[in-house]
Amino acid sequence: MPMDAEQLRDHAHKMVDFIADYYKTIQTFPVLSQVQPGYLGKLLPDSAPNYPDSLQNVLNDVQEKILPGVTHWQSPNYFAYFPSNSSIAGFLGEMLSAGLNIVGFSWITSPAATELETIVLDWLAKALQLPDDFYSSGQGGGVIQGTASEAVLVVLVAARDKILRRVGRSALPKLVMYASDQTHSALQKACQIAGLNPELCRLLKTDSSTNYALSPDVLSEAISSDIAGGLVPFFLCATVGTTSSTAIDPLPALGKIAKTNKLWFHVDAAYAGSACVCPEYRHCIDGVEEADSFNMNAHKWFLTNFDCSVLWVKDRSSLIQSLSTNPEFLKNKASQGNMVIDYKDWQIPLGRRFRSLKLWMVLRLYGLEGLRSHIRNHIEMAAYFEELVGQDTRFKVIAPRTFSLVCFRLLPLLNSEDHGNKLNSDLLDSVNSTGNAFITHTVLSGEYVLRFAVGAPLTERKHVDMAWQILQDKATALLESS
Amino acid sequence: MPMDAEQLRDHAHKMVDFIADYYKTIQTFPVLSQVQPGYLGKLLPDSAPNYPDSLQNVLNDVQEKILPGVTHWQSPNYFAYFPSNSSIAGFLGEMLSAGLNIVGFSWITSPAATELETIVLDWLAKALQLPDDFYSSGQGGGVIQGTASEAVLVVLVAARDKILRRVGRSALPKLVMYASDQTHSALQKACQIAGLNPELCRLLKTDSSTNYALSPDVLSEAISSDIAGGLVPFFLCATVGTTSSTAIDPLPALGKIAKTNKLWFHVDAAYAGSACVCPEYRHCIDGVEEADSFNMNAHKWFLTNFDCSVLWVKDRSSLIQSLSTNPEFLKNKASQGNMVIDYKDWQIPLGRRFRSLKLWMVLRLYGLEGLRSHIRNHIEMAAYFEELVGQDTRFKVIAPRTFSLVCFRLLPLLNSEDHGNKLNSDLLDSVNSTGNAFITHTVLSGEYVLRFAVGAPLTERKHVDMAWQILQDKATALLESS
Repeated sequence: MPMDAEQLRDHAHKMVDFIADYYKTIQTFPVLSQVQPGYLGKLLPDSAPNYPDSLQNVLNDVQEKILPGVTHWQSPNYFAYFPSNSSIAGFLGEMLSAGLNIVGFSWITSPAATELETIVLDWLAKALQLPDDFYSSGQGGGVIQGTASEAVLVVLVAARDKILRRVGRSALPKLVMYASDQTHSALQKACQIAGLNPELCRLLKTDSSTNYALSPDVLSEAISSDIAGGLVPFFLCATVGTTSSTAIDPLPALGKIAKTNKLWFHVDAAYAGSACVCPEYRHCIDGVEEADSFNMNAHKWFLTNFDCSVLWVKDRSSLIQSLSTNPEFLKNKASQGNMVIDYKDWQIPLGRRFRSLKLWMVLRLYGLEGLRSHIRNHIEMAAYFEELVGQDTRFKVIAPRTFSLVCFRLLPLLNSEDHGNKLNSDLLDSVNSTGNAFITHTVLSGEYVLRFAVGAPLTERKHVDMAWQILQDKATALLESS
Repeated sequence: MPMDAEQLRDHAHKMVDFIADYYKTIQTFPVLSQVQPGYLGKLLPDSAPNYPDSLQNVLNDVQEKILPGVTHWQSPNYFAYFPSNSSIAGFLGEMLSAGLNIVGFSWITSPAATELETIVLDWLAKALQLPDDFYSSGQGGGVIQGTASEAVLVVLVAARDKILRRVGRSALPKLVMYASDQTHSALQKACQIAGLNPELCRLLKTDSSTNYALSPDVLSEAISSDIAGGLVPFFLCATVGTTSSTAIDPLPALGKIAKTNKLWFHVDAAYAGSACVCPEYRHCIDGVEEADSFNMNAHKWFLTNFDCSVLWVKDRSSLIQSLSTNPEFLKNKASQGNMVIDYKDWQIPLGRRFRSLKLWMVLRLYGLEGLRSHIRNHIEMAAYFEELVGQDTRFKVIAPRTFSLVCFRLLPLLNSEDHGNKLNSDLLDSVNSTGNAFITHTVLSGEYVLRFAVGAPLTERKHVDMAWQILQDKATALLESS
């Protein structure tokens, strides 16, 4: 029987122990998987089995064949990209959601899934002190998307259709979108999917003079020049906490420009939004009052297992106009009577999981104060790492640290031909190949820069110390050999 | 500590018991939630808590406040929409995926996540006897999308860009898409998102003469007329197992037309694809040889918890050309060296969960033979239900049953003003309000039709009998009162 309650109980208890043991031993694995491309094909058969196998055999295969190919995002030695927090509450929420296994596209398909989402996103809007316009009680509201990529795509499409309703469909090839060159690549992809003219997706240049934030002057000039050229500006995306260096675009000034030019103003705070539940970081999103939409990824740094990207909009009807469908087979009295929210009309897919459960459980089991200490703890460790880097004159911090990401590099020797780019790339490989720390990189103003992102829930100061020790040792070896 | 292995163990064991108990008692809940809109707001506070609460309190709230608002898709009395299978293996796969909580956008972020997905989709392609072109060893391959909506959107965008590369970007407003009027609304939504001219999304009329399948003649005429009008046909979507009535579009004839006219040919077998692992149903997708892409939802009827929609394409480079991004912060040697698949370039979002784990566990723990009996068992029950309907002269089966969906209606009394539409709508409400069965409806040729979809893993013949008894009793009451 594929669903027998007692067999579920027995098997799932075994899986719990497997996962708890995984966390107990997580430091014994290389944090960045060291396998070679194609490794798994050599270990697995080339057809699905015809007959059932036992759970024990499957778990043995997980241990012996799958885990070596896992990069351990939950390892305390994980400092790559941005974090992807797992927590007990987030994990329990995923379990419950998978256990109920409902598909909550319309209110009627599980009223609790829709209503809990609305309520919890109002809670979170309040915790972030978002303007009232983003609450569900007005014309706006929040919705859980899978990722920030989907969030920016849905608002881009809503904004596109809104302007086209005003100026006519034939203006599609003239629509201009603005953002900085530090904006996440998801935006460019969204423009591509939405059929916008790729040449009119303006990624405005930034540099160290603004700490890689978008300059309002540069934006204003670009808009004026486009209007003069007969084009139709319609969308501005600002970022609070860019992926490369956690730069913060100046929302108040950008918001004013957006308003004057009637642009849809989207604020992407996918990573840094979580920090803004702390009063001392809330100022980072000052100016969000002028935004039409605001996004943060609870699945990054807010203890909510992936995926859970939270999007608020001020005018939900724009989303619904672009994304609603109403086929006969989904009609029901609650929807037809406009008595309820049907989140299918706020997102790309039809089906949707009961993701609000995990966000609700995170808020319940940790409380806002618990979440604030979680954030502060990581920021303190990043500040500590920044200090360590500052104390070693061979290294240099490259961009100011605001949250829990430190951008730094090993300074090249004099007369170095590549100005240190190869050196730092080699350092990265050398550190990551130890399996005892995983960091990633970016390029800022043409320089290859290392990124050290603190944020895994298990990370403690001793792990930061160890990573720094590895970095120092590998740097010494590299400098000596060069 | 948000992630302590022993606390995880303790709490997760409690959650396992909660979920196992839920399945033991699932029949005690009304299958369709009977709450009124706004019920939950009255039960929950209006702010997130500041301090942590206990798991026991949260579980009590789930039991008392959340579960009454759940529509129980896993109830054996669920016969609505299409099924959304949960199974022990699928649930365990979700647990493990949530436990590892990796974000597998690129190969390097967890090689096992990418490689297991490729391997398992090759297994499934083999089980479905898909043509070799869909295997990863050639130019094609499979990828897990969240939903069929996302699957059709990505192939639509790939097809759009492919034709625009050939004929020039300015042809965008002239592109024509073809499908039948029975095609899932997800396709229209995808056209809207992709910026296609909504007037050129041709949903060709079907009727009972073809059992609601798309007529190749109607398609040919539409294409000829569009070409004559200077338009650019580029995409055809055929469905095997439509949502309303599981109609089967004639793939071989449609595929030939697509080939002649150089259309991208997508086959949506979201629901019925699962049945095609049984040799006796494989003929339903004969003609898939001509398709450019093929989609089935393992999360519908293949014991794989939501979400898991499987898409195969013959030419993966088309997808990648449309959907790839390559920001500096994601670059790594394996990707840059083209040594690996990065599934981020095959889908809309960047981030992705380790969903292949659950499909792999389903295949391992049930085997293909186990999955085949699961499918056959449901089809037999649907055939049994069809027989029951046929024996009661007050009812009529409306469309031929092929899989596990029966479309039927209560015949109106003579001189009925609404020709039975209100009668059947009332019957639906009346049945669903009992909480002992949940069915949904559609409209075929203007007639309101009831849909009885067998497919929940816990459904046995006695549940079909009970649902039929309720339908008969409620029909008697309605006919008497009218």
